Amino acid sequence: MKKLLFLAFAAMMAVGASAQELANFGRGQQIVSPEIKGDSVTFRLNANYATVVNLYGNWMANYTDVVPLKKGANGIWEVTIAAPEPEIYTYNFIVDGVNVNDPVNYMVQRDGTRYLNMLFVPGERSANYNETAHRGTVSYKWYDSSILGSNRRLTVYTPYGYETSKKSYPVLYLLHGGGGDEEAWSSMGRAAQIMDNLIEQGKAVPMIVVMPNGNPGQQAANTMGLPVKNIDTRAPENANLYVKSLVNEIIPFIEKEYRAIPKKASRAISGLSMGGAHTFAATTLFPNTFDYILPLSAGTRESEQLDAQLQGIKKAGYKLYWIGCGTADFTYEGNQILDRALTRNGMEHTFFESTGGHEWKNWRLYLNTFAQLLFK
Amino acid sequence: MKKLLFLAFAAMMAVGASAQELANFGRGQQIVSPEIKGDSVTFRLNANYATVVNLYGNWMANYTDVVPLKKGANGIWEVTIAAPEPEIYTYNFIVDGVNVNDPVNYMVQRDGTRYLNMLFVPGERSANYNETAHRGTVSYKWYDSSILGSNRRLTVYTPYGYETSKKSYPVLYLLHGGGGDEEAWSSMGRAAQIMDNLIEQGKAVPMIVVMPNGNPGQQAANTMGLPVKNIDTRAPENANLYVKSLVNEIIPFIEKEYRAIPKKASRAISGLSMGGAHTFAATTLFPNTFDYILPLSAGTRESEQLDAQLQGIKKAGYKLYWIGCGTADFTYEGNQILDRALTRNGMEHTFFESTGGHEWKNWRLYLNTFAQLLFK
Repeated sequence: MKKLLFLAFAAMMAVGASAQELANFGRGQQIVSPEIKGDSVTFRLNANYATVVNLYGNWMANYTDVVPLKKGANGIWEVTIAAPEPEIYTYNFIVDGVNVNDPVNYMVQRDGTRYLNMLFVPGERSANYNETAHRGTVSYKWYDSSILGSNRRLTVYTPYGYETSKKSYPVLYLLHGGGGDEEAWSSMGRAAQIMDNLIEQGKAVPMIVVMPNGNPGQQAANTMGLPVKNIDTRAPENANLYVKSLVNEIIPFIEKEYRAIPKKASRAISGLSMGGAHTFAATTLFPNTFDYILPLSAGTRESEQLDAQLQGIKKAGYKLYWIGCGTADFTYEGNQILDRALTRNGMEHTFFESTGGHEWKNWRLYLNTFAQLLFK
Repeated sequence: MKKLLFLAFAAMMAVGASAQELANFGRGQQIVSPEIKGDSVTFRLNANYATVVNLYGNWMANYTDVVPLKKGANGIWEVTIAAPEPEIYTYNFIVDGVNVNDPVNYMVQRDGTRYLNMLFVPGERSANYNETAHRGTVSYKWYDSSILGSNRRLTVYTPYGYETSKKSYPVLYLLHGGGGDEEAWSSMGRAAQIMDNLIEQGKAVPMIVVMPNGNPGQQAANTMGLPVKNIDTRAPENANLYVKSLVNEIIPFIEKEYRAIPKKASRAISGLSMGGAHTFAATTLFPNTFDYILPLSAGTRESEQLDAQLQGIKKAGYKLYWIGCGTADFTYEGNQILDRALTRNGMEHTFFESTGGHEWKNWRLYLNTFAQLLFK
């Protein structure tokens, strides 16, 4: 590896290549990784000087399930495994104990501060995660929050044709979980691709999707390097601070800056994990704001106020209450509690159960499913 | 490292944490890296099991200038060096011969397919690379190119207040170099931060900045995983294919979708390296399109057509011809050729020379400098 580095740099110096051309480093040998053929997938790594190379992918049940690669005569390490079911996964190599990315795989997702290679297994379930012909716009915008005392970044998806149509659109507020930020849904969640596909297929109505940053101390994803306020995100009053900013600041901002229909019937809110808790808090605190309520992998606890909170929503009226959770999710029980509480309060709702746990695989599936039900 | 991984994963499993919470991996020990104090900077890495840890930063003259870290009793490797002059740099660690990122540094830049940690040394020169109070919007949009036969992604910066003002704006078309893509200027180039600062300070007029993808075979950055056409980017006719798409497709698209002033006096074009060649080609092929012409680190060669090409621009008229190049840049001679050719053709122009070579440090400086001269 070291020698390879030296050779690569020597070559660069020789042609006077620039820092930006470092991109080509490590691609001297034309290897392909990952390579999907039929039902199998092959991973390769050019690492002649390594002693042990392992593969870890998030489709493996446990971290200890790492798969060893075998070194070929050409110094290329390789392993072929059965492809996991169609979906998007992340993986990395472990070279002599150090986690490294696959240098020939361009597709990378950021998970918090970790940049992980993607494995995209095509199939019916993952078809809507591909780019389609008519693609909407993803924008990074800033809004001023006096509630949180900072200028804060949010991601906005506008559907194909938004700029030149004269129409107004309904809005889905789509919230991330703990450890995530305003880029989580558009990166790991494939939100833009899913919406593009559903809208193009006529399965979802054209809508704006707003993906804010749910960490009250942050102005933006930590990768932007901006100062972070020390706000304890576990303290209930701070969770509500963000939810108050969402309803009292973000919604008016969006309805001013975009052609968004400023009506309850044209607003949906969904979020995963912490974002599901934000969804619950926003709809119980502000029952007259959203007609579509979709907490994912969050659930709730039994509490003295629970029935009163749900009655508030029932009284205000709503069009859809949709819960999504995997049966192996650690929040599954909390989702059952919410399901039962909605039933005993006489509130129509859907409990969409999938296999699997607390993972993006499920959150993509939920968005791909519930977006078809909104604003109809 | 391996043991650390196991511990981190064990802890995760114990609390039932999700993939998204992997973000917190490796931060068990509260170490800070990089840490700037006065004129020095300290790098740290928690890698108890490593044998050799080196640091490479792009402020070092040669790759062989790597700096060794020393292991402390706590298993934390550390080195303190003199901070390079105020600017943004990239660095990585080399752990037992394998390149790895600094796991506690959130700030990362993508250079092609490489994700490199950033070192931001504050000072007068880098002050405009920070976020300021009034922040514009960065959008990723798609336009249809029949010339290149694909739907293609571009990045658009709109200044603070664009959405609610009724004004129309001039447009800077800002092109990347070889190995780059439509995200290069907004990521490594800090284009949004530089424009926000200059506009807020009243030093630049509010403008739209359009950053297209200059690789004709690509629909978008390779990280999006879209199919790539096999178009030889070195073949002159293909360079012109892109330039034709820029002038005949991108400009009309922008002037339809945005409140852009559709006039020569309100269009500027700049690009670095390959993007400088695109700037030269676009302005010689379409001399009636841009009043502001700013090739960076590109230059030209003496050729039979050179004088005729420049005379075409002179005849059409222009407001600013501005060349930027570092004296250590391998394209420096080509810039001197262009400088002399402009002089002998009686064309007013600026040759802005800096120290340094073919590097982002210079391209950020050039944008920060020339943006103050546009549309005035």
